[in-house]
Amino acid sequence: MKLNWGMIGGGEGSQIGPAHRLGAQADGLFTLAAAALDADGAKGRAYAQRLGVAPARAYGDWREMLAGERGRAERVDLVTVATPNATHFEITKAFLEAGFHVLCEKPMTMSVEEGEEIVRIARASGRICAVNYCYSAYPMVREMREMVARGDLGRIRLVVTNFSHGHHGNAADADNPRVRWRYDPAMAGVSGQFADCGIHALHMASFITGDQVEKLSADFASTIAGRALEDDAMVNFRMIGGAVGRLWTSSVAIGRQHGFDIQVFGEAGGLAWASEQPDQVYYTPVGGRKQIIEKGEAGLSDEAARLSRVPVAHPEGFPLAVANIYVDLAAAIRGEARDGLPLAEDGLRSMAAVAAAVDSARAKGAWVDARPPMLR
Amino acid sequence: MKLNWGMIGGGEGSQIGPAHRLGAQADGLFTLAAAALDADGAKGRAYAQRLGVAPARAYGDWREMLAGERGRAERVDLVTVATPNATHFEITKAFLEAGFHVLCEKPMTMSVEEGEEIVRIARASGRICAVNYCYSAYPMVREMREMVARGDLGRIRLVVTNFSHGHHGNAADADNPRVRWRYDPAMAGVSGQFADCGIHALHMASFITGDQVEKLSADFASTIAGRALEDDAMVNFRMIGGAVGRLWTSSVAIGRQHGFDIQVFGEAGGLAWASEQPDQVYYTPVGGRKQIIEKGEAGLSDEAARLSRVPVAHPEGFPLAVANIYVDLAAAIRGEARDGLPLAEDGLRSMAAVAAAVDSARAKGAWVDARPPMLR
Amino acid sequence: MKLNWGMIGGGEGSQIGPAHRLGAQADGLFTLAAAALDADGAKGRAYAQRLGVAPARAYGDWREMLAGERGRAERVDLVTVATPNATHFEITKAFLEAGFHVLCEKPMTMSVEEGEEIVRIARASGRICAVNYCYSAYPMVREMREMVARGDLGRIRLVVTNFSHGHHGNAADADNPRVRWRYDPAMAGVSGQFADCGIHALHMASFITGDQVEKLSADFASTIAGRALEDDAMVNFRMIGGAVGRLWTSSVAIGRQHGFDIQVFGEAGGLAWASEQPDQVYYTPVGGRKQIIEKGEAGLSDEAARLSRVPVAHPEGFPLAVANIYVDLAAAIRGEARDGLPLAEDGLRSMAAVAAAVDSARAKGAWVDARPPMLR
Amino acid sequence: MKLNWGMIGGGEGSQIGPAHRLGAQADGLFTLAAAALDADGAKGRAYAQRLGVAPARAYGDWREMLAGERGRAERVDLVTVATPNATHFEITKAFLEAGFHVLCEKPMTMSVEEGEEIVRIARASGRICAVNYCYSAYPMVREMREMVARGDLGRIRLVVTNFSHGHHGNAADADNPRVRWRYDPAMAGVSGQFADCGIHALHMASFITGDQVEKLSADFASTIAGRALEDDAMVNFRMIGGAVGRLWTSSVAIGRQHGFDIQVFGEAGGLAWASEQPDQVYYTPVGGRKQIIEKGEAGLSDEAARLSRVPVAHPEGFPLAVANIYVDLAAAIRGEARDGLPLAEDGLRSMAAVAAAVDSARAKGAWVDARPPMLR
Repeated sequence: MKLNWGMIGGGEGSQIGPAHRLGAQADGLFTLAAAALDADGAKGRAYAQRLGVAPARAYGDWREMLAGERGRAERVDLVTVATPNATHFEITKAFLEAGFHVLCEKPMTMSVEEGEEIVRIARASGRICAVNYCYSAYPMVREMREMVARGDLGRIRLVVTNFSHGHHGNAADADNPRVRWRYDPAMAGVSGQFADCGIHALHMASFITGDQVEKLSADFASTIAGRALEDDAMVNFRMIGGAVGRLWTSSVAIGRQHGFDIQVFGEAGGLAWASEQPDQVYYTPVGGRKQIIEKGEAGLSDEAARLSRVPVAHPEGFPLAVANIYVDLAAAIRGEARDGLPLAEDGLRSMAAVAAAVDSARAKGAWVDARPPMLR
Repeated sequence: MKLNWGMIGGGEGSQIGPAHRLGAQADGLFTLAAAALDADGAKGRAYAQRLGVAPARAYGDWREMLAGERGRAERVDLVTVATPNATHFEITKAFLEAGFHVLCEKPMTMSVEEGEEIVRIARASGRICAVNYCYSAYPMVREMREMVARGDLGRIRLVVTNFSHGHHGNAADADNPRVRWRYDPAMAGVSGQFADCGIHALHMASFITGDQVEKLSADFASTIAGRALEDDAMVNFRMIGGAVGRLWTSSVAIGRQHGFDIQVFGEAGGLAWASEQPDQVYYTPVGGRKQIIEKGEAGLSDEAARLSRVPVAHPEGFPLAVANIYVDLAAAIRGEARDGLPLAEDGLRSMAAVAAAVDSARAKGAWVDARPPMLR
Repeated sequence: MKLNWGMIGGGEGSQIGPAHRLGAQADGLFTLAAAALDADGAKGRAYAQRLGVAPARAYGDWREMLAGERGRAERVDLVTVATPNATHFEITKAFLEAGFHVLCEKPMTMSVEEGEEIVRIARASGRICAVNYCYSAYPMVREMREMVARGDLGRIRLVVTNFSHGHHGNAADADNPRVRWRYDPAMAGVSGQFADCGIHALHMASFITGDQVEKLSADFASTIAGRALEDDAMVNFRMIGGAVGRLWTSSVAIGRQHGFDIQVFGEAGGLAWASEQPDQVYYTPVGGRKQIIEKGEAGLSDEAARLSRVPVAHPEGFPLAVANIYVDLAAAIRGEARDGLPLAEDGLRSMAAVAAAVDSARAKGAWVDARPPMLR
Repeated sequence: MKLNWGMIGGGEGSQIGPAHRLGAQADGLFTLAAAALDADGAKGRAYAQRLGVAPARAYGDWREMLAGERGRAERVDLVTVATPNATHFEITKAFLEAGFHVLCEKPMTMSVEEGEEIVRIARASGRICAVNYCYSAYPMVREMREMVARGDLGRIRLVVTNFSHGHHGNAADADNPRVRWRYDPAMAGVSGQFADCGIHALHMASFITGDQVEKLSADFASTIAGRALEDDAMVNFRMIGGAVGRLWTSSVAIGRQHGFDIQVFGEAGGLAWASEQPDQVYYTPVGGRKQIIEKGEAGLSDEAARLSRVPVAHPEGFPLAVANIYVDLAAAIRGEARDGLPLAEDGLRSMAAVAAAVDSARAKGAWVDARPPMLR
């Protein structure tokens, strides 16, 4: 039986909405049963119905949806929160407290304190609170994680990751609302580009290595006049196990499209992966030749195989990485363990890293503990 | 409202089944309502039910499904035929004659005569008979077609296309049934690799240029002992508008994974595209620099924009190209014109090209008319 | 001691002259001691002197140079012939007959008969007559040849090679003399693009596999109005050992710069190399992963190591491939065997292939013996 | 007339020696007239003679060479210093003071003080003291510099450069003398990888932008036990004109071969270049598409054209970049201005940057003035 799915935010014209709808539905695991898609209640209701939601469950806002779903016998099994960042906390909190499983878009909250509260609530409720670090669900990212876990790279020495694009590099876009809010503390909080993209890269570093960031030193820059928040950041970090980290993120790197990549170097070899060609991993054993590992080839880990759908060299794409998050959610909702699923703790760690980076940048690069107090 | 969809073939473990299920369901356009998925009726029924098909519509074979669906008030709106090649003709014929819309896997039939019969039936029935030339549904392939149509390349002089892989290059696989049948005339018909992969490339040449193949000259080779059919073929062709064509296809090109690419050269510029990186087109205007056109960037044609779902540089992948076939099918079923949809005429043209290539290869490369008699 | 070198043709502004001067001098093996560089004798004399040639040996034309050098005690050890194609035969013949070693630019002659005559003269004289198939002197091309020779690929099944560019793709260049002569039979002979670039690719196929072309079938096209010779050609061939060959060459492939590449497929693996990135070979063992072999890495063949100069991943470039021809020439002049050096027989084979391709193209692709009569 | 050239260091088996010999001789501009090639005097003398140096000028060490050449009427026009780093200062100083032009390998000196002394001597002597930042002499690097200078990128916001390889990533090489000395302060000085490779990247940032580094913050790591100096470093910097800089350098990035690349982002566009494919620049105007600029194409700057030798898409390689340094040196020796030539001031700036980075790393990333006192 399909699970019932509810969506909050991600209305018509949103960037992330289509990826969630594709992700939840591609494998036939979830049916969109309830939705509050838009800040404009009437628009949201109409769009939800065009997407097949019954009129009674096409809500005008999330509170209405909470009230409506809470009382139903067959209420939604999962709620996805894809609203503006500043609202993630209260919506996620409310649904968790009401006993729903939640998938929250990143950033999960706007502060470490809120993040700790979500973790506490999730733990107390026994509900799943997942966070959409979807890049970690690409089959070949899982393959890298498995390779590290089984020791193919030996002790990890160094992780280098970039998430840099140029889509905010045009100063003439200063008044474009899609760009402007990212650099407005009232809407974006204490960090611009690092909170937007950098935390994906930092999560990936932890995800692949199976280790956590201990401390960091950040250098923030606003390269376009009038931006109160950084549009370019460099973060050096150290992981608990001793690995060195380098993370560059930028939104003014004109010519880079979706420049998210990661390199992991251990004593026995190196790995490289880039999100624009997600089906290949470049692996070099120490003293040996570079090899290209292909999604779908024979001999991959069970984890990579489980999350692939079509034969080798048929690209699977971003929406199916999001779909893999839903695959793992469906399993987890049914009670199966899925240790690759990014959870509230991961969302909290990102908030602690953002806070630490902001503090460090203000202190001219001083090294700051990056761990959330409750997870030290 | 979702359309009801029926699937024949594509059972558990099949290569193409998942792509169709993802394709039909990703956008929430179709619900799998009926199915006859497996040559083993019991297995097929059980799998269909696990996929959510009601027991009454989980059929043991296509005849049972035809009988069952024909009489229903809410019968399926579309039937996908993804069975072994030799059965495509009779199943497609039967469903078209019974008034169903059909999406048939390629090759549509095993002969030109069968192909002509399907075209006649489809025309007489007024039903849609589409053929799954899914590569033509990638947004950037549509973009290339639009560019040619609006004259960006001027008169087309030359089309060069390859569809070569190495997955049948291991002689030790001679008894692997997944490989062997491809080179057994009893199962594969008159052609091996050209009929399997070459016709995708030939379709693409016509699709992008908006022109048809007039005649061809073929050189076939069986590079592994014991193969009765070709595992490597070179086909030179001429299009009606005068363009020269070069098509190489191979299954013994060890190291190539899914080496389908196409280059189109006109008097005003050149285009290059490869299926392993389907979101980019390389465009060089005559006398100018090579440019990289990205799926999802601003300024693309309506057609490319319509068939994209996530932002620039978020790869969309193969299953969503298949999904685009279903997008156009859903529209066509609802009565909207979709001129990019590959139809029975395209399936027939492929069969004529296969027959011509086989004749040419036997005649040491003599030039042979490649057009089906009824479409000359 | 440096060898004394003489150059004929390759004057100021020529495309190939600089590559020869770099090639002969880069390793300090040859000193430019005599030259007849230009059809305009005065210009040639002046330029030679600017290049450091003594006035007495800065000649006005090749006959003057032959007369002058023939009588000298310390005459030049090697003469490079880099004049217009139609003059290669008589100049090469004259210098060989006078006892000079010669490096002739390709094509060595304009006909098979001339080619056979050069071979006879070279054999009779005991002089070296080399032909500048310089791509075969890249270290990684030598590596591929060694890999095939020692059996890494097993029996060779298939060779696929392209040499296609777009530099003659602008119809507006019709009157550009640098382009026009290529398609004028009075200057270029019986073939345009195939004789210009295709023979490099065909030589490479033989060079790497250690086998020769037995027969071929050609399809020629002139895609720009007014061209008497082909600007695009496809040649299918068979090698004596049974390997299948595919060769595409074009000068109207707009967007391709110097698109010379080769793929070699055997029963035990595949290789791929491209001239625009000459320091890497892509090698895939059957059933294994693609590996990148790098020029300069540890463990390469002696032959590849011998012809490399700078560390791994420091690109060596085209002029040093030409220099490798001179390295082997210097050794051969000193009496050491160099079996990689392309010789008059190779030049003759190219002429036979051109003649066969022209015959085949006129006969609509009929298969024609491609071997020179004297080498069958 | 050729210039007379003397070489110190770069004996048989050295890595950098061949590049200098190719560089000086490829264009026929210099003749190797004197040499002291090896710490082992007898070996050096013998090798020099094998390279064609007259016995009288094949010296046992640099002091002997200085004494010998100083007195000659036709003394060498240029001395290249390619000895171990710690000796650069005294040799360069001695030859400058004796009135020779010098090309010194990097690093020019081991300290800022020494660097300032060389600058003073060079200025006082009127002799050229060049430093071999050879990457800046690639034609396409010159093209980028010209593009920035003429404003194609507008104000520069950001420079991101990496010079990371994995050749010191094998812990088992700890006792390999070719690796060990790099991390031994007694031989390498205060910095390992940053002083070895990082300063190339930092020089390039200044070279392309035409600006200088003002201050920097460094994070150093020694990822292999027992290394007293860093094998991985991240340096953030600010240029005088306000541009932000990011520089990552590593010798333990297993799988990277010669991973030197640079990206320059301005308000009007972005550039990207990588040393492993030095003939292409990727250029994206703001709001436009990525374009590939090719060495040798029509329409490049005079500077790029002047330093190219063979046609478009014929790779020129690393030795010819070194040769371009010699081209500019030959011109400068003859009294022509060559503003692209890296000089003692550039060598000094590198030493100041190394000192600043070491200070910053010790002070946990504190920002440190990176300018040499005498050039502030």
